[in-house]
Amino acid sequence: MDKPSADGGPTRFETHPSRYKHWKLAVTGELATLTMAVDDEHPHKPGYELKLNSYDLSVDIELADAILRLRFEHPEVKCVVFTAELDRVFCSGANIYMLGLSTHSFKVNFCKFTNETRIYLEDASANSGLASLCACKGTTAGGGYELALACDETMLVDDGNSAVSFPETPLLAVLPGTGGLTRLVDKRKVRRDRADVFCTTAEGIKGKRAKEWGLVDHVVSRSSWDATVTERAKSLSAKQTVTRGPAVELPALSAKVEANGVKYRYVELQVDRTARTGELTVRGPEASDVLDFTTPETWSLHAFRELDEALLRLRFDFPEIGMIAVRTVGDPKLVVLHDELLATTTTGFAREIRLLQRRVLKRFDNTARSFYAVADSAQSCFAGSLLELALGADRFYMLIDGDQKIGVATSVANAGFNVMSSGLSRLGARFYGDPELATAVLQRGAPKPKSPRGAIALPPERAKLLAEHPAYKLAMSIEMIPSEEAEKLGIATIAADDIDFGDELRIALEERASLSPDALTGMEQSLRFVGPETLETKIFGRLSAWQNWIFTRPNSTGEHGALTLYGKPERPQFGWKRT
Amino acid sequence: MDKPSADGGPTRFETHPSRYKHWKLAVTGELATLTMAVDDEHPHKPGYELKLNSYDLSVDIELADAILRLRFEHPEVKCVVFTAELDRVFCSGANIYMLGLSTHSFKVNFCKFTNETRIYLEDASANSGLASLCACKGTTAGGGYELALACDETMLVDDGNSAVSFPETPLLAVLPGTGGLTRLVDKRKVRRDRADVFCTTAEGIKGKRAKEWGLVDHVVSRSSWDATVTERAKSLSAKQTVTRGPAVELPALSAKVEANGVKYRYVELQVDRTARTGELTVRGPEASDVLDFTTPETWSLHAFRELDEALLRLRFDFPEIGMIAVRTVGDPKLVVLHDELLATTTTGFAREIRLLQRRVLKRFDNTARSFYAVADSAQSCFAGSLLELALGADRFYMLIDGDQKIGVATSVANAGFNVMSSGLSRLGARFYGDPELATAVLQRGAPKPKSPRGAIALPPERAKLLAEHPAYKLAMSIEMIPSEEAEKLGIATIAADDIDFGDELRIALEERASLSPDALTGMEQSLRFVGPETLETKIFGRLSAWQNWIFTRPNSTGEHGALTLYGKPERPQFGWKRT
Repeated sequence: MDKPSADGGPTRFETHPSRYKHWKLAVTGELATLTMAVDDEHPHKPGYELKLNSYDLSVDIELADAILRLRFEHPEVKCVVFTAELDRVFCSGANIYMLGLSTHSFKVNFCKFTNETRIYLEDASANSGLASLCACKGTTAGGGYELALACDETMLVDDGNSAVSFPETPLLAVLPGTGGLTRLVDKRKVRRDRADVFCTTAEGIKGKRAKEWGLVDHVVSRSSWDATVTERAKSLSAKQTVTRGPAVELPALSAKVEANGVKYRYVELQVDRTARTGELTVRGPEASDVLDFTTPETWSLHAFRELDEALLRLRFDFPEIGMIAVRTVGDPKLVVLHDELLATTTTGFAREIRLLQRRVLKRFDNTARSFYAVADSAQSCFAGSLLELALGADRFYMLIDGDQKIGVATSVANAGFNVMSSGLSRLGARFYGDPELATAVLQRGAPKPKSPRGAIALPPERAKLLAEHPAYKLAMSIEMIPSEEAEKLGIATIAADDIDFGDELRIALEERASLSPDALTGMEQSLRFVGPETLETKIFGRLSAWQNWIFTRPNSTGEHGALTLYGKPERPQFGWKRT
Repeated sequence: MDKPSADGGPTRFETHPSRYKHWKLAVTGELATLTMAVDDEHPHKPGYELKLNSYDLSVDIELADAILRLRFEHPEVKCVVFTAELDRVFCSGANIYMLGLSTHSFKVNFCKFTNETRIYLEDASANSGLASLCACKGTTAGGGYELALACDETMLVDDGNSAVSFPETPLLAVLPGTGGLTRLVDKRKVRRDRADVFCTTAEGIKGKRAKEWGLVDHVVSRSSWDATVTERAKSLSAKQTVTRGPAVELPALSAKVEANGVKYRYVELQVDRTARTGELTVRGPEASDVLDFTTPETWSLHAFRELDEALLRLRFDFPEIGMIAVRTVGDPKLVVLHDELLATTTTGFAREIRLLQRRVLKRFDNTARSFYAVADSAQSCFAGSLLELALGADRFYMLIDGDQKIGVATSVANAGFNVMSSGLSRLGARFYGDPELATAVLQRGAPKPKSPRGAIALPPERAKLLAEHPAYKLAMSIEMIPSEEAEKLGIATIAADDIDFGDELRIALEERASLSPDALTGMEQSLRFVGPETLETKIFGRLSAWQNWIFTRPNSTGEHGALTLYGKPERPQFGWKRT
């Protein structure tokens, strides 16, 4: 097994509360407490100490893991309280020395991951009956306050000293990197001129004024702190209407890390470092994988958890691999069967699986690599939830085969649940100009239960159980849309027969891999996220873009930049041109 | 008078068709033709030639001037046709050698200005009955195609050779810088995977496919070209419902350029280069300026035209002045009188003035400088249309004076017409969290015609004419909101009495001027544009941010970058890390 890497090695995003170094997770009935107690001697990379509850990637990997486990393993929890073990400091934000030591691509990927983690915390509150309370009993600065902004409610201790603050601009010449500015004015709706004062006041704002300006929801004295925390957490808990469960224990992913990729049970990433290209392959379920949605081993959950980690490893461990061909292997009927069974299972656990699939597909959209989906084998299974990968990719290449075995199929997973950050479904985004084309694809691809097209090979026991299930009948009757028709319907970007296909694809991959990675990132972001904007798209598309730029400016990261010189006696020197 | 600058000198944004070097404006009845005929020997700065109808700032200044004059001076024109004098080239985009020679701040400001010009072309179509047709009878590349995208309809010649293209990413490692990516998928709703192919295909797409993909509206043979252009232009013209006029001739602005600023009749910009601060002062109308809205000398038009040019000069000629104090001088009653008279005048000319004010205020919002509005004198007149400057500023400082002469007043100009790029009014953006507070301000500030508070000193003739006018009665009865109350209502950021005011303001200005200009730009953009997103905010907030970043990357502008090496035999060398 791989360990958290020193520098450039494999990064493991899966962890377990028993291995946490920086957080303590405690569950008592409906309430959970996540206590931040950052171990300064265990940074993600050597070279800095995580003083004063400052955080780095390792700390955030644990946070993401804890939120995920609360959703699946502790369905009884209705409110999670964030607090800290230090008495006078809640959290002092991302570790500045870590930022100073990191490459630009690491910094940007670190910010993106922390943004996703906080958006997923908000997702848990919005969709899964898991509220959050940030109990800031001390200094709450930078990323610490960004965590608070992502919670449903924030409490600040009124001790004459503790403040919330965004010191990034005045002290470091960068922006709050985890959605803070957007959440301040768009989510908390702090008046923009007050937000301006707040974001340029390094020492922050405390007490009554913090509440009056809407920066926090409650200011509470030390003496009534514990009682108020409990009271607010119980109040948030009491409001929850969505229930989760039954509880499952998430199994380990068992990644097999190799020099040029990583292999899981269903997902495999292989890279060619010379060509700077990679292949991401997702296997559909086997017949023997068709299980009730009571076990976390189910393909619908396990394969998407693997895909999630594979995407994160791609971002962090393979920064120079810019062009990824995405393939699927398996039986499209089994994918559709899983999707339809999942959608008709009424447990909270089944809903959590669908929400997780949705988040993983969002992570795919937000990964700054060129993705071309490729259906060039009769084994491919771009159906339902896996068709979303083709719809999310920048292009979709399909081989036209003589016997029309290569094709795509839709399922309930394409019909609206799996929204992008913009709130549009991937079909909706693809046919932004003509929603009727999306409807046409769904109708054409929809299973026709009245004309079943042959049984699905299942183990006898499962076959017996499922034979009369509507989802089985649906899956059994899917009629694949072959490549040529998929191109006409606007699903395939390019469909070609085998005389042209191989060369066309090879040249396309080579050409893409030869273009400037920076320009491609900006281009893909602009084209992928068509249509409406949301808090999420604002954070990823606008705030992140500014932060990306600012991170490259000499004023922050140059030799005399503020981030570089932080903690040193020298004063930063700025170039003054405004742009 | 100043001339277009060689490098760093004063830039004049006002021009006149009689002085155009790069465009020919011809008006025939309802149709105007703007023929692009770039004079390659008259670039904005020495050092490059404007070959093949490529453009630079000078070309775009003329374009902006022409669109403005069509609105005011040629109200009979209902459709403008863009065409080119070259036979095989419509426009080859922004001049690449110019970009290679320019500083980062110039490049960004150039892109912003060209974006504004194209958005204002769209504004003319949406609000002023001036449609546009882009008649591309030849190669249409980069910014040339971006101009086409800003038009209502685009025609491409079908000659087997002429294509539309965005070669920026494959050839230059940058993005189309003038809203092109956003317009492609959000305005024209080109399918995102096709947009991806298009934006990475340097030679572009021509003929039938260009039409099939939605890149152009018509492909037309050479033989039927002229007839079809006329037919389409007439068809667009016939659809217009809004009428403009009567015609006026826009008077010259008569800027007095000085070493440390620029003075107009109503507007003055003065900078302190050592402190890196500036003062922008806008004078309200004099009593003798109260005119019918039949003359282009009216304050409502002339002062805002001056402000527009002053803002552009600030951006281009004073890049190191990051902190601007905005003051107003005059009689608030006269400002309100102008606003109310303007809003009740039903001519197209009056509406054009209001639309111009709106665009100038948007230019203010989109200017990457810190603006603090300051009301520290009984002469200040932050009322109505000038109050918008205080609401658009990052902060508003008000002096509390003993006799409450300092205050603000609202008018019809604050009630919804003057929207920001987001579509929100500035009061709406300020009170995004609580729209009732915006309503409360409007009600408190609204003139109370039943309790007139004294006549307005006007020349006898005008007084006689206006005495019974409802607008006069409204203006006469305004009751200023004094500083302390303005702070309570949320209009002032900070109100202080004269013991504290001077020091507080001085320190605030100094502090702001000491912060990193890059971080401030990103911070201000994020806080100013709260709430909904539109094509405009996407272009300025998202696309521009990406472009800003990409322009600073070695892959485009470094020694071995693609932009730097364009036209040279060497191949660019890229760093491959994806972020």
